[in-house]
Amino acid sequence: MVDSLNRKVILASRPVGVPQADHFAVKEHPRPAAAEGQFVLRNRFLSVSPAMRGWVNAAKNYSDPVPVGAVMRANTVGEVVESRHPGYAAGDILVGMFGWQTFAVDDGSAVTTRLESPTAPLSAYLGVLGISGVTAYFGLLDVGRPKARDTVVVSTAAGSVGSVAGQIAKIKGCRTVGLTGSDAKVRQCIEDFGYDAAINYRTADLDAALAEACPDGVDVYYDNVSGAVSDAVYRHLAMGARCVICGTVSVASWDPPPQGPRIERYMLVNRARFQGFVIYDYRPRWPEAVRDLSGWLKAGELTYREEILEGIDAAPGSIARLYDGDNMGKLSIRV
Amino acid sequence: MVDSLNRKVILASRPVGVPQADHFAVKEHPRPAAAEGQFVLRNRFLSVSPAMRGWVNAAKNYSDPVPVGAVMRANTVGEVVESRHPGYAAGDILVGMFGWQTFAVDDGSAVTTRLESPTAPLSAYLGVLGISGVTAYFGLLDVGRPKARDTVVVSTAAGSVGSVAGQIAKIKGCRTVGLTGSDAKVRQCIEDFGYDAAINYRTADLDAALAEACPDGVDVYYDNVSGAVSDAVYRHLAMGARCVICGTVSVASWDPPPQGPRIERYMLVNRARFQGFVIYDYRPRWPEAVRDLSGWLKAGELTYREEILEGIDAAPGSIARLYDGDNMGKLSIRV
Repeated sequence: MVDSLNRKVILASRPVGVPQADHFAVKEHPRPAAAEGQFVLRNRFLSVSPAMRGWVNAAKNYSDPVPVGAVMRANTVGEVVESRHPGYAAGDILVGMFGWQTFAVDDGSAVTTRLESPTAPLSAYLGVLGISGVTAYFGLLDVGRPKARDTVVVSTAAGSVGSVAGQIAKIKGCRTVGLTGSDAKVRQCIEDFGYDAAINYRTADLDAALAEACPDGVDVYYDNVSGAVSDAVYRHLAMGARCVICGTVSVASWDPPPQGPRIERYMLVNRARFQGFVIYDYRPRWPEAVRDLSGWLKAGELTYREEILEGIDAAPGSIARLYDGDNMGKLSIRV
Repeated sequence: MVDSLNRKVILASRPVGVPQADHFAVKEHPRPAAAEGQFVLRNRFLSVSPAMRGWVNAAKNYSDPVPVGAVMRANTVGEVVESRHPGYAAGDILVGMFGWQTFAVDDGSAVTTRLESPTAPLSAYLGVLGISGVTAYFGLLDVGRPKARDTVVVSTAAGSVGSVAGQIAKIKGCRTVGLTGSDAKVRQCIEDFGYDAAINYRTADLDAALAEACPDGVDVYYDNVSGAVSDAVYRHLAMGARCVICGTVSVASWDPPPQGPRIERYMLVNRARFQGFVIYDYRPRWPEAVRDLSGWLKAGELTYREEILEGIDAAPGSIARLYDGDNMGKLSIRV
């Protein structure tokens, strides 16, 4: 890659369901310059996340769809290389929504965090100390409200969000049960992330396995998947259960919504609370989460796994990879 | 009816779905006497409520099913006629779970409320000043948490719970939209219960009618029905919506749960909260609700409609009547 060029991944056509490599195109442009009030940032790591499917689909979502022809929206971490903005200087390390491109020009509005003195590898600020970890933190603690000795079930339990949710629940004194899609990930749940039990939902009798792993029912369900896995968990809710609706990755398309068993009766009988949750609403409280997560990481109470793809040409096919269920840990791209 | 006899309505066989007249039998027994620590109560009004379907079905519910051969569980109001209990005296007017029978023997454990000086007709204490009104009060205010100028949609809007929920929402400064099943009830919603708009879900294009009645979306949905009506409301939720899951009368049987559109995406995108709610959890706070409801009734801010069937022989067929959608107002039986 030549640093006099900006390589951008643009949305080439609008997918229905999971975006594939051919929905994107990599384009080369001259390296941009900063106008007054702007800075230029050289991206170092680009995030790949399940939420991206929603960002490119046309259905109503929590943000406007990425326009066809525009740079793919993405959380990234990079270094300021030129600044005509009074608040930013060359050398600053920033996390923000700078998109799938090598260089970004911004006026500060895309910035999430400035890393004053990063204590972990930069890629961690897209994962365990970034949006994944912060999502798990507020979703579990603020929406799920676990109490010590609660049984907490997490779907995509070995994933970048799930693995942190499971570990925070454990730190808070809960019994943790992970649902995941391979035997390798079941082992990872137990050995790396400290779950008390883990279930391969592809091979287990999920109802029987949940009954065994959760004899007193499920107090908190941290859900990233929806679909048949969640249907099974709902059958095991305890009185006063809280279901944190954080993602719906098992459902290929919500336009129109697919059919499934109605769930209002589970809510009623168990006095259960189901609550949708989008991390962007917690932006003002971000530092509180990063402070706690950094502390747990430093103390060895929290661990993470990541998978790093090399080069921006890996970006177009990377979202589909997440939905294949084969990746282990937070997925990002080094550029 | 001879007052030396106790006439009881027993559950004769276990229904699937809505119980019909032939699931019950009326039996005559001698009038009971009180043992030490008991009293005998002469029932005056027996409640008929949609929750009774759940009480007699075998599926998991919020209380154990009524055993076949037992007196039908029911909320009633009556007068103590004999007492060997230190806390109750002949002449006391009590509301409680005394069942579908003319006489009940109890040790005080079935008592909900003692009416010190009833200010409304006794039947009102089974409805607007009883479980229906108290359900609407806590479901709307404690679970739904409406704010002034919120749009509040109520299903079974003219029913014994819905009509009170709609009126309390109005008292709290909300815009209220009622969903109901006949043109007569639409008129009742507007003219008697003060809804800003009311929709006959059987004849309207519900999506279009909701869009027109709720241009800023639905902030609070007080739901008693589930099913297709609720599916339509979910498509119109506003950001941060609260759905109070109070009943599911439109679904004939939950064993197994019927199929419908999955709803997790609505929760996620709208950061919506869905919460199941059972009034028995609020027993300690009952007087707080009755105090406010009595005050509003006295001040003319709250009104109610009731339909009273005559004689205990009307009881067996009365639950099915509720599900036919033809009754207007709180249904009870004078005995």
